[in-house]
Amino acid sequence: MQMAIDLASENVQNNGGPFGAVIVRDGEVIATGVNRVTANNDPTAHAEVSAIRAACAKLQTFDLQGCTIYTSCEPCPMCLGAIYWARISHVFCGCTQQDAEDINFSDAFIYRELEKPNAERYLCQRFIMHSEALVPFRAWTLKTDKTEY
Amino acid sequence: MQMAIDLASENVQNNGGPFGAVIVRDGEVIATGVNRVTANNDPTAHAEVSAIRAACAKLQTFDLQGCTIYTSCEPCPMCLGAIYWARISHVFCGCTQQDAEDINFSDAFIYRELEKPNAERYLCQRFIMHSEALVPFRAWTLKTDKTEY
Repeated sequence: MQMAIDLASENVQNNGGPFGAVIVRDGEVIATGVNRVTANNDPTAHAEVSAIRAACAKLQTFDLQGCTIYTSCEPCPMCLGAIYWARISHVFCGCTQQDAEDINFSDAFIYRELEKPNAERYLCQRFIMHSEALVPFRAWTLKTDKTEY
Repeated sequence: MQMAIDLASENVQNNGGPFGAVIVRDGEVIATGVNRVTANNDPTAHAEVSAIRAACAKLQTFDLQGCTIYTSCEPCPMCLGAIYWARISHVFCGCTQQDAEDINFSDAFIYRELEKPNAERYLCQRFIMHSEALVPFRAWTLKTDKTEY
């Protein structure tokens, strides 16, 4: 965790956001990540997403089961979703989403949005062309040589 | 939306998942994305995240305000979080998270997890070293030349 915190501190001095993450397996650091959203013009370049992408590239897998992530701040919904999809086994956090809100990051706002029914959200999703959209799902179901995950 | 659906169908034939997304601004297609999780060993390479990264790279910005995303399936929490962070203005969806669950994708499972208190989740987050973790947040607050977002 101290490494994740130090990465976050260094990143502030390097034109990045105050967030760092480290992915570890069997006592070995597999990959690290820092927030490069504004530096790289990539709103998905949070510390956890960046660390997951780097770890998967290094290990040549989409499955980080057995790995632990240490993140200097509680993951936002995007990053927590990424952690679930990557099947990371353990999550340690430093700061909370409330701490992030206190310095004007939107993590807690997005969590509150996800708690609302779609119709009440700031960004209400509209559903169209449902029957057409099921076509690729049916093709997926019928495909016999697919890689499931 | 038909373009997003067609991308999803093509992607099934191209060793990808059955998901496609298109980002549009002022009637112009800015970028597209498909699910390349297993093909690229990147659990974050969902259609929406891929389209957002491509659109931001093309427009050289981390702010997609004024853009609309058409996605062949309701975004998972990771992708919805990315949509919020990218400040996309409108979201149109084809299939639902229930449709995705019906073909064995974890979208709805992750939404259910996020609804639970942390202590009851499958992947319970443990908080450690809170006071140390606040150090980079304080450095961020004190920094005068930062790029906020």
